[in-house]
Amino acid sequence: MTYGRSDSAFGEIAAAGDDIHALAGRLFPINRSITGDGVRRTLGILSERVPLVLHEVASGTKALDWTIPPEWNLREAYIATSDGRRVVDVAEHALHVVGYSTPVRRKMSLAELAPHLHSLPDLPDLIPYKTSYYTPTWGFCLPHRVLESLREDTYDVVIDATLAPGSLTYGEYVHQGRTSDEVLLSAHVCHPSLANDNCSGVAILAMLAAALKGRDTRLSYRFLFGPGTIGAITWLERNRTHVGNIKHGLVVSNLGDGGGPTYKRSRRGDAPVDRAAAHVLRQHWPSSQVRDFSPYGYDERQYCSPGFNLAVGSLQRSAWGEFPEYHTSADNLDFIKPEHLESSFRTIAQILDVLEHNEMLVNASPYGEPQLGSRGLLAPVGGVPLSEADRMAYLWVLSFADGTKDLLAIAERAGLPFETIRKAATRLKSAGLLAHVTP
Amino acid sequence: MTYGRSDSAFGEIAAAGDDIHALAGRLFPINRSITGDGVRRTLGILSERVPLVLHEVASGTKALDWTIPPEWNLREAYIATSDGRRVVDVAEHALHVVGYSTPVRRKMSLAELAPHLHSLPDLPDLIPYKTSYYTPTWGFCLPHRVLESLREDTYDVVIDATLAPGSLTYGEYVHQGRTSDEVLLSAHVCHPSLANDNCSGVAILAMLAAALKGRDTRLSYRFLFGPGTIGAITWLERNRTHVGNIKHGLVVSNLGDGGGPTYKRSRRGDAPVDRAAAHVLRQHWPSSQVRDFSPYGYDERQYCSPGFNLAVGSLQRSAWGEFPEYHTSADNLDFIKPEHLESSFRTIAQILDVLEHNEMLVNASPYGEPQLGSRGLLAPVGGVPLSEADRMAYLWVLSFADGTKDLLAIAERAGLPFETIRKAATRLKSAGLLAHVTP
Amino acid sequence: MTYGRSDSAFGEIAAAGDDIHALAGRLFPINRSITGDGVRRTLGILSERVPLVLHEVASGTKALDWTIPPEWNLREAYIATSDGRRVVDVAEHALHVVGYSTPVRRKMSLAELAPHLHSLPDLPDLIPYKTSYYTPTWGFCLPHRVLESLREDTYDVVIDATLAPGSLTYGEYVHQGRTSDEVLLSAHVCHPSLANDNCSGVAILAMLAAALKGRDTRLSYRFLFGPGTIGAITWLERNRTHVGNIKHGLVVSNLGDGGGPTYKRSRRGDAPVDRAAAHVLRQHWPSSQVRDFSPYGYDERQYCSPGFNLAVGSLQRSAWGEFPEYHTSADNLDFIKPEHLESSFRTIAQILDVLEHNEMLVNASPYGEPQLGSRGLLAPVGGVPLSEADRMAYLWVLSFADGTKDLLAIAERAGLPFETIRKAATRLKSAGLLAHVTP
Repeated sequence: MTYGRSDSAFGEIAAAGDDIHALAGRLFPINRSITGDGVRRTLGILSERVPLVLHEVASGTKALDWTIPPEWNLREAYIATSDGRRVVDVAEHALHVVGYSTPVRRKMSLAELAPHLHSLPDLPDLIPYKTSYYTPTWGFCLPHRVLESLREDTYDVVIDATLAPGSLTYGEYVHQGRTSDEVLLSAHVCHPSLANDNCSGVAILAMLAAALKGRDTRLSYRFLFGPGTIGAITWLERNRTHVGNIKHGLVVSNLGDGGGPTYKRSRRGDAPVDRAAAHVLRQHWPSSQVRDFSPYGYDERQYCSPGFNLAVGSLQRSAWGEFPEYHTSADNLDFIKPEHLESSFRTIAQILDVLEHNEMLVNASPYGEPQLGSRGLLAPVGGVPLSEADRMAYLWVLSFADGTKDLLAIAERAGLPFETIRKAATRLKSAGLLAHVTP
Repeated sequence: MTYGRSDSAFGEIAAAGDDIHALAGRLFPINRSITGDGVRRTLGILSERVPLVLHEVASGTKALDWTIPPEWNLREAYIATSDGRRVVDVAEHALHVVGYSTPVRRKMSLAELAPHLHSLPDLPDLIPYKTSYYTPTWGFCLPHRVLESLREDTYDVVIDATLAPGSLTYGEYVHQGRTSDEVLLSAHVCHPSLANDNCSGVAILAMLAAALKGRDTRLSYRFLFGPGTIGAITWLERNRTHVGNIKHGLVVSNLGDGGGPTYKRSRRGDAPVDRAAAHVLRQHWPSSQVRDFSPYGYDERQYCSPGFNLAVGSLQRSAWGEFPEYHTSADNLDFIKPEHLESSFRTIAQILDVLEHNEMLVNASPYGEPQLGSRGLLAPVGGVPLSEADRMAYLWVLSFADGTKDLLAIAERAGLPFETIRKAATRLKSAGLLAHVTP
Repeated sequence: MTYGRSDSAFGEIAAAGDDIHALAGRLFPINRSITGDGVRRTLGILSERVPLVLHEVASGTKALDWTIPPEWNLREAYIATSDGRRVVDVAEHALHVVGYSTPVRRKMSLAELAPHLHSLPDLPDLIPYKTSYYTPTWGFCLPHRVLESLREDTYDVVIDATLAPGSLTYGEYVHQGRTSDEVLLSAHVCHPSLANDNCSGVAILAMLAAALKGRDTRLSYRFLFGPGTIGAITWLERNRTHVGNIKHGLVVSNLGDGGGPTYKRSRRGDAPVDRAAAHVLRQHWPSSQVRDFSPYGYDERQYCSPGFNLAVGSLQRSAWGEFPEYHTSADNLDFIKPEHLESSFRTIAQILDVLEHNEMLVNASPYGEPQLGSRGLLAPVGGVPLSEADRMAYLWVLSFADGTKDLLAIAERAGLPFETIRKAATRLKSAGLLAHVTP
């Protein structure tokens, strides 16, 4: 373990909710999938803020147990009636076509078309989100209300798509800290026109990466924007020898609604990121939930697979599948709110702040309580008298800094915010009352 | 640890409740004690179904800290009034005589007789059950209503019993499995005319032993029918070097009423049988109770004594002493019901099924999630599509089969039935995605 | 670990509540501080009962991170109006002067005097308790009602005190047991005229020390009466090499009110004294609270500092700061009651009784249950039949005395009082059924 030299407060990094929302709004309309130009356009917008390194991995390349699929690109897709009226058109909403649909250009009866139409009878005004990456097929998604209005006709059905050798694209940005210990921050960029899932997460990570520029940090921060599942698998394949540097990580998504926050522990269950996230949520979010790892969800599934078993948790507001807008056209830009995006950003920064500044220290004057007053530790700081919590924090740190408890563990034991414990530790260090553990 | 070669579902073994009740009904009227012909007749009836090996151990033989007592046999026992009317007669109910009563044949006044009469003032219509194995005495048990009706008279008191050198009798049957690892299944056969305690347990174990015949099992199953306490002590004395083979065990009793089930953990507390029983009860019996070991009860007291400390738990429906019929004539054949006997049988089979098929496996493709669809693992099985639980079971097994959690632990972690996890593991093994742990 | 030779019941030691209260009453009026003649007079009174060894440690002596301060002695202190009426006089109540006040003898206006007056606006009839050991200042404490009645005048303000090189005083008494393993019993003697905090604790420890005289004990008992913080620090400095003998300890205070009891665990959290105190409180005090260690409170702060980390807990009735009389003139001799002092005394004796008699034993007949009746263990003792708890206690001890659980752990596991388990163990030892663990 190495230690922060400065007190630079990671926790002070902030982003305005309106700015995050505006960035999410630019990403929203793009028709993304797990490969193709939609991902490239998305990464291009992010590159305006962060110097992303873009990776292209050819179709057919082996990645762990998988193979990079052909690249899919869609030009247009619509269903038109015999009189030329387009009843469904992907130009109006990216969800209208089933992701990875094979090309079609044919006239057909409603009976022939029907098996390719997907709707939500219980939410008749919403378009569902569907994909078929590994089973070749084609289809359209539409509101059930529209589906029911279709009459017998000869429909002109067009999906002008290519599914051909190409490449999978992902982008990375590393904020280099003073050490090679890394925090992996990962968001999937494969979903078209779903604002919460995951324009919210992508925009927040991009804003965070931008905000870190020029800041002195102990840890290095690796931002990864790639398609879900196959993107994480591809990255893991290409970074097998590097993953030892990943000490902490967060997969983020659904960060713009008002629910949760919901933290899902890494498979390890008690990794520092699990403790840090639980601490921050407990301190700041009475409505938060912390859940054990389960092998379903987003890319933590891959990072936490037992061969890698990385210390990567997952942060969401409402969890996937648990809000009615999930994977429908109701997950739009009205659904995500600037204030929620802003508080999600702040929560991530607080978690990272704990990871950044957590350290293992040892009381250098462990026999009886050392005098605090004679060392000036009880004097006002910048004119502000110490609070009772500040004074107690000294005692908690001195009592429990014995080489078995890091500052986060002491904060948890004391029932005090990490920040209060950290400030006390910083002043005790300055007074020579705390020493680093030398391995 | 060795592993099941087949999927033969122990869980499919069943017995009809009416058949179990009929067998219990044949055992019920016999006047049993810890030694004597009542035990032999009982074992004779069981031998019709299972080739029991019968053991006779001579009175006076040392067994651990104990000595085999003289053998007790009762021919008749009654109290008759001076006009020859038998007011109490063991021919009418086996509970009427205190077990191990010394012989008596005398005329006596009510005053002389009274100290030898036992009744339940609070349950005046019921006959209590009493014994005096190690303090020589004699007595009769009778309904308090009858006791109160007795008038001054010269009573003819007869207990025609012998208490003489003989032997203690127990019966064993071993179903030989593919390994020498054994499950001990033990029921006490010393109680006369008490249906729940323990004609129910004896009948169920006999039916289970019979049902196992011809079946291929991984584990071997040892069925032990002997008198309580001294029987278990005698068996332990004679099997001191063998007990290392006993990997799991259950002492059964009170299996015919509708309460519980009640599982009492082995002294170890976290033995596989403890985890298996808790899992089965949690999955199937909302009304069930799992209790910690206490050093009182049935023969688990002996098996779990600290020198042996076998992994033997105890399964009952209502626990001894906690139902009003306990150790009275109300514990009769009407008290135990075919449906409860049948579900108790099934519960035992389910517990054994877990023990039979639990194993430690390791994900052979632990880097990222392996593809399931391309291996045919997501296809319908026998025309039945996989359930969501089936699909999740694959992921749970792949995620947690890391050499530290057996299938039962994974089932518990996943909150899924063992059977679902086991089926998933079987298919993953067939697909080469799971490997055995080689020691 | 060594073992008690006798059954001498520490638990039988008792003291009459009236006697404890009378002793506390003699201590109450003395004007004590962390140094000076008040402490010496206090220890002098205790010496009437217990042959205390008195220690004087010169001002200026280094003690751990601290230095013994100058000695403070107060002759008189008052505020008089211009017509000679004393509105505040320490002769009336020792709390009237701020502890360690520097000398003053001056006439001054109310405006000049006011910053040196301390009162409790919310409790206008009470005198607060204030000290200023390490910041030179002076002051008076008085009821807010009196403070508000002061009119503009020329006040005669006198604090006739000396703050000069001298010494710090503490007293020790060791009851020598058969082993050098010690129990540290510590009470602070620095508070003036506060009955609960801590005449109660000082009186109880003195009575306990007296009651121990002539008794055969396994453990040695060290009684320490010194000023808070600096006293404990001085003792630790002078006993650095001795503290290894301290196996258990209790800091006591606030033992005369009807709250709690409140036990605060040692920093270790699971030391034998923590388990013993929790057991006694659970058995006898439904209203009791057991709390985790926190680094604030009385001298457990010093004993538990991480360099020493002694197994010292803290026992109070109501905890400091949690009763309205705390550190005010309402903490007087009416506030503490003989019955509470007596039950506090008994509780301490019960905790010590557990420490005295707890031991690790092993079942010497661990194969099956040994016969109890044939060894006379089921016979009445002194004409009193064994209770069901007594009989169960035999079984619990035999089952769990396996070298991993001491008697206290067995009592906890059984849910029985330690005393019941200890009596069973004593009889089982006599019958040869238990053996000592030889290291």
